[in-house]
Amino acid sequence: MEIDYALIAERLKLREEDIRRGFKRGIIIREEYKGVPMIAFRKKIKHIERGTALFLNENLDYIMGYPKIRRALVLNPTIKNYFIDKVVVEEKLDGYNVRIAKINNNIVAITRGGHVCPFTTKKAIQILNTKFFDNNPNLMLCGEMIGLNNPYVPHYYEEVDRGWENLGFYIFDIRDRETNEPLSIKEKIEICKKYNLPYVEPIGEFDKEDAHEYIKEIIDRLNAENREGVVLKDPDMAINPIKYTTHKTQCGDLKAAFTFFYDLGVDFMFSRVVREGYQAFEFNENDDALKKRALDIGESILYPMVDTIKKVHSGERVTEDFEIVVDSEEDLKEFLEYLKRLHMQFIIKNMEKIKADDEYKIKVKIGKIYSATNDKVLSHLNGGLW
Amino acid sequence: MEIDYALIAERLKLREEDIRRGFKRGIIIREEYKGVPMIAFRKKIKHIERGTALFLNENLDYIMGYPKIRRALVLNPTIKNYFIDKVVVEEKLDGYNVRIAKINNNIVAITRGGHVCPFTTKKAIQILNTKFFDNNPNLMLCGEMIGLNNPYVPHYYEEVDRGWENLGFYIFDIRDRETNEPLSIKEKIEICKKYNLPYVEPIGEFDKEDAHEYIKEIIDRLNAENREGVVLKDPDMAINPIKYTTHKTQCGDLKAAFTFFYDLGVDFMFSRVVREGYQAFEFNENDDALKKRALDIGESILYPMVDTIKKVHSGERVTEDFEIVVDSEEDLKEFLEYLKRLHMQFIIKNMEKIKADDEYKIKVKIGKIYSATNDKVLSHLNGGLW
Repeated sequence: MEIDYALIAERLKLREEDIRRGFKRGIIIREEYKGVPMIAFRKKIKHIERGTALFLNENLDYIMGYPKIRRALVLNPTIKNYFIDKVVVEEKLDGYNVRIAKINNNIVAITRGGHVCPFTTKKAIQILNTKFFDNNPNLMLCGEMIGLNNPYVPHYYEEVDRGWENLGFYIFDIRDRETNEPLSIKEKIEICKKYNLPYVEPIGEFDKEDAHEYIKEIIDRLNAENREGVVLKDPDMAINPIKYTTHKTQCGDLKAAFTFFYDLGVDFMFSRVVREGYQAFEFNENDDALKKRALDIGESILYPMVDTIKKVHSGERVTEDFEIVVDSEEDLKEFLEYLKRLHMQFIIKNMEKIKADDEYKIKVKIGKIYSATNDKVLSHLNGGLW
Repeated sequence: MEIDYALIAERLKLREEDIRRGFKRGIIIREEYKGVPMIAFRKKIKHIERGTALFLNENLDYIMGYPKIRRALVLNPTIKNYFIDKVVVEEKLDGYNVRIAKINNNIVAITRGGHVCPFTTKKAIQILNTKFFDNNPNLMLCGEMIGLNNPYVPHYYEEVDRGWENLGFYIFDIRDRETNEPLSIKEKIEICKKYNLPYVEPIGEFDKEDAHEYIKEIIDRLNAENREGVVLKDPDMAINPIKYTTHKTQCGDLKAAFTFFYDLGVDFMFSRVVREGYQAFEFNENDDALKKRALDIGESILYPMVDTIKKVHSGERVTEDFEIVVDSEEDLKEFLEYLKRLHMQFIIKNMEKIKADDEYKIKVKIGKIYSATNDKVLSHLNGGLW
C-alpha cells in the first residue's frame, strides 16, 4: 500500500517533508497489527513524541508517545525550583511503560517504542475493565506492566503474585490519546475507582518547600524494600512529572547491564554512576555509608562481568531469560513473530503446560541472545586483542 | 602559503584525494613550529599513522606517528597465540609517548597527536645526548616522558627525582622516522649504551609457552608498587608489541576520569572496568580478593565524583593542576601559546622562582579547566533536570 505522506502530515500537524524524511532516515517505520497497517515513530519529530503509533485506517487514528520524564539529580533545590506549590509523590514501579487505548474497536497495548505488543495487549484485556473505553474513546490508560513474568523487565513484585504468574498493571496517568493532555491526579483516581481499574496509589502530597525531606525518607524506605523510586507530580498535572530513583535501582541497572557488558555496558554505565554521585552527596553520607555505596557499585559492575566471562569460558552461551504465561500455542506464536519483527534474537529454553486456576496455560522460558557479549568475550578469551 | 597536495601525497605515498579530503574533514591540520609550517595527522589515513607530523620544508621531512599498541585482555592464551617463540617484557611507564627526531637541524619532540611540544622539546634537549642524531639522522627515539612535573600525565616516579623537578625520559623503541621500522631490542640497547641514552631496561625474556605465569607475577609486583604495567615485545621486533596493565592503573585512570566526570567519564569508564573484569577472571581471585577489587573500582568512581560535587557546591571551580619547571618567562610564554593553539583552557595558579642546582628557574602551577564538569554540576545542583 502506498503511504499518503500529505494526509499523515495533516493529521499530525507536521509538514509533509517531515514525514518523508522520517521514513527515509528510518525514524518512522511501517508496521502492522492484525492486518491493519500502521506507522511508529522511533524518535521524537517536533511535537510528535517518540513511540507515537498511527494506524493507517480511515481516521488515521493515533496514540501519542508517552512524554519523556526528566530526572532530578538532587531533590533539593530541584523540587522547590520546579513545582508550583504542592507536589504529589507516586511510587515509580520497575516494569515497562504501556499505553492502552481502543482503536478500530480493538484494545491495543503500545510499548514505549510505539509497537503494539501482542503479549501485553492480551494481558491488558484480561486485567482491565475495558468498559472504560466505551465511555472515554479519546483517553488512553498509561501505566506500568510489572512482575517477574513479563518479556521486558522481569522484576518480582509480591503484590501481583497469583502463584502461576507474577504480573500486574498499574495506571499512573490517564491522558488524551492524541494531545497527551493528562487528567488531574484527583480525576484519574476517581475514574479508576469508578471502573475498578488498578492504579498507583499516591504516597503523599507535600508543600514543595520541605517536600525533599519527606521524599528522602520515602526513598530510604523504598530502597530498603528494593523498589525503584518515585515520580513527582503537580496535583493538576499542570507541569510534567519528574522522577528520582533509589540506590538499589542504580545498582540493579548496572548488574543487568554488565551481565551483557559489550551489548549494554557503555550506554547504561555512566548515567547510573552519576546518579549515585549526586545521591551520595545529597544524602550526606558518613565514611562508612559512602564506602558501602562504593562497594555496591563496584560489585554491581564487576561481579556480573566476571560471571559472564566464566560462563563463556566454560562453553556456555549467556542469555537473558524470562518466563511468560500464555493462553495458547497460537498466542505464543504471535508473540514470537512479533519479537522477530523487532529483530530480537532468542531461543526457547523450556515450555510446559501449567494449571492456572481452573484452566490450563503454557509457561514458556525464552532466552534473549546478546551476540556482541557472547562473541567478543569468546574472542578475547581466545587471545583476541583489544 | 598554498599547500601542494600533490607533492605531500607523493611524499607519503597517498593519493592527492586523501590529502585533500583529510584537510577538508579536519583530520589533517596545519600547524607551525618556530616559523616552519607543518601539518599533523589527527587520525590514521591508510598507512599514515595518527600523529604523523610533516614539515613543509624543502624535503617535506616527516615523522611517522607511533603505531597503536594493542592490548591483551587475558595473558593466557594471548601471549602463546600472538608471539613467535620468545617474549621480552619491558615495564610500561605511566607518562606520555614522545618521538624525538632531528628535522631542519633542530631537535623536535612530537607528542602522540603529532604536535611539536615546546616544553618537551626543551627538556629532551637537556636530558639527551643529541649527538646520536648526527650519526643517525633517519632514526627517531620513541620514549615515555614521566614524572610529576609534566603537563600531560603527572605521576610521581622516585627514579627521576632531583629535588626541584620530578621528570625523566626513557626510550622504549628506536625506529626509522619515516617507515616506523624498529631496531631489535638488542640493537636498541647497544645504541642507547653507546650514546649514554636512558632506556627502559627489560625485566626479562621468556618462552612464550609459560611467559604468562612469570608475567602475572611481574604484574602483581608492579601493582604493589603502584606502577602501570608491561609492554610485551618480540626480541627482533618482528611483530608489534602488545600491552597489559595493573589493577592500580585501571583504578587510577577511573579516579582521574571521574574527577572531571562530565568531560572524561564516558570515554574512560567502560574500557577500564572491562579490563578489570578479565583480570579478576584470569587472576582467579577468591571471594575476598574479588570483593577488594570491587571496592577499589567503586571507590575510584564514586569518591572523586562526590569530591567534585562538594567542591562545586562550595563555590570552587575544579581544575586539573600540574606544576612544571621552565628556564625562563619566554619559555613559559611559548608553552602557554602552544596550549592555546590546542584550545586548552587553563589558568595560572602560581609562579615562583626556584633554585635549580646552581641556577634559577621558574616553577609554575597551571590549572586545566574542564568546562563541562564545572558547568553541568553547578546546573544540576541548582535544580537542573537530566
